[in-house]
Amino acid sequence: MSERSCFLHTRTVRFGECDPAGVVYYPVFFNWFHETMEAWFEAELQLSYAEAIERFGFPAVETSAQFRRPISMGEKIDIQLRVEKMGRSSVLLGFTIFDKQQELKASGQVRCVCIQVDQEGFQFSAMEIPDFLREEMKRFTVL
Amino acid sequence: MSERSCFLHTRTVRFGECDPAGVVYYPVFFNWFHETMEAWFEAELQLSYAEAIERFGFPAVETSAQFRRPISMGEKIDIQLRVEKMGRSSVLLGFTIFDKQQELKASGQVRCVCIQVDQEGFQFSAMEIPDFLREEMKRFTVL
Amino acid sequence: MSERSCFLHTRTVRFGECDPAGVVYYPVFFNWFHETMEAWFEAELQLSYAEAIERFGFPAVETSAQFRRPISMGEKIDIQLRVEKMGRSSVLLGFTIFDKQQELKASGQVRCVCIQVDQEGFQFSAMEIPDFLREEMKRFTVL
Amino acid sequence: MSERSCFLHTRTVRFGECDPAGVVYYPVFFNWFHETMEAWFEAELQLSYAEAIERFGFPAVETSAQFRRPISMGEKIDIQLRVEKMGRSSVLLGFTIFDKQQELKASGQVRCVCIQVDQEGFQFSAMEIPDFLREEMKRFTVL
Repeated sequence: MSERSCFLHTRTVRFGECDPAGVVYYPVFFNWFHETMEAWFEAELQLSYAEAIERFGFPAVETSAQFRRPISMGEKIDIQLRVEKMGRSSVLLGFTIFDKQQELKASGQVRCVCIQVDQEGFQFSAMEIPDFLREEMKRFTVL
Repeated sequence: MSERSCFLHTRTVRFGECDPAGVVYYPVFFNWFHETMEAWFEAELQLSYAEAIERFGFPAVETSAQFRRPISMGEKIDIQLRVEKMGRSSVLLGFTIFDKQQELKASGQVRCVCIQVDQEGFQFSAMEIPDFLREEMKRFTVL
Repeated sequence: MSERSCFLHTRTVRFGECDPAGVVYYPVFFNWFHETMEAWFEAELQLSYAEAIERFGFPAVETSAQFRRPISMGEKIDIQLRVEKMGRSSVLLGFTIFDKQQELKASGQVRCVCIQVDQEGFQFSAMEIPDFLREEMKRFTVL
Repeated sequence: MSERSCFLHTRTVRFGECDPAGVVYYPVFFNWFHETMEAWFEAELQLSYAEAIERFGFPAVETSAQFRRPISMGEKIDIQLRVEKMGRSSVLLGFTIFDKQQELKASGQVRCVCIQVDQEGFQFSAMEIPDFLREEMKRFTVL
């Protein structure tokens, strides 16, 4: 029986990420989702995101987020990543953000598509997610 | 019969908004949505966003976006804003981004809620959108 | 007798550029300097910055800034660019930021070096600034 | 004899911090300087930066940086902070950035001034750095 779990990325909310209302400026959440995905590649997927994008691109094609409660400067937050759906060339990543009291702050989804890269740069046409990567990613599908 | 239309914000894509793939880093789109909303307040709603947030807050509580085609550094883009739904204390804003050849690049929605602000700062409890503002905003509902 | 002048870039300070103190987060000033340089290429130097970086790179190697007075959300600002020094492969750009009452808000300098780019990407070795570009830039040296 | 040392902040360079040349977009360095200062407050100065700015402001009034070598996406970097000069109401912070091979990548200086904050928000007039904070900071002056 395979063990399945989400990936956890922890960070502190920074001054420059907050707006004049004293709370996180909402576009920053998507930056955190991307950062969490990069940390996940490095820690769990056998190749870093930097290595990955020499072999293929992995752009977001669709995203959404719900902001439940404001997050303030200096807060420590946990960002959980899980794989909500694996397709042939795309993957739907789910994110949830909690504070240290386990209160849900925000959640979101990002659909990424695997695309070709060649010497001319990124080609925005889909390719299949490489098998080894799909296998690693599957460990983070949560039923 | 009142005239209804969308609000148009035009800008150039900047170097610092693009990533190593040479295209816009996707969290930046949400920054553009917010910038467009601020420009809309200034140009059309009788009070600037800076003035508005002295009287009430207007945070995003939910958002989504679809990225159709990559956007490159230096491109001129048109960002259209329309009001998709007016509630008592919230408004759903719709955004579409086109390049100069009228090709659809991206679209998105942001739901903002009007909240109270007092001397202690923002109170994250909803209030009704002020009448004068609702009337101005309604001009941008597109049927 | 050639006419010499500075280049003027005007913009509005955005919500997402301000911090919990309600004023511009200082790293943003450098983003504005870069944005102003890009606008200068487009408007005055016969090739856009996007076109330029297909032929050579133009990274900052040194920079400094002085922040005189805080700048708040919603302010309209004028950013002036001038060429303070032209070298063979580098140029020293000077920036000053004023509000609409002509009050000096901030100033800065950025030294950029022209570097080679080839099919493998940017090569971080200096090259001479192309003659046509040097001639255009010289129009913005202020004595 | 008191022990003196610099403060070390370690982080990974993220995709969204790099530009179309594939290297760190230079305004991001100043964001890192600020982040490092915040981490220093939390770890070493007896009060977090979030707590600090409820009692006083600490804005940058002057800064400079030298970018020696490009830094790429995915690199692990060490950012060292030291106190170069302690004044009555200001402090000059020095930063150096190294990669994991101990190669110097960039350096910079930021002068911050302690300012008053009251119920109306930040007042941009200088105040003396509180004694307890000055004593803590002094541990990071490097001769």
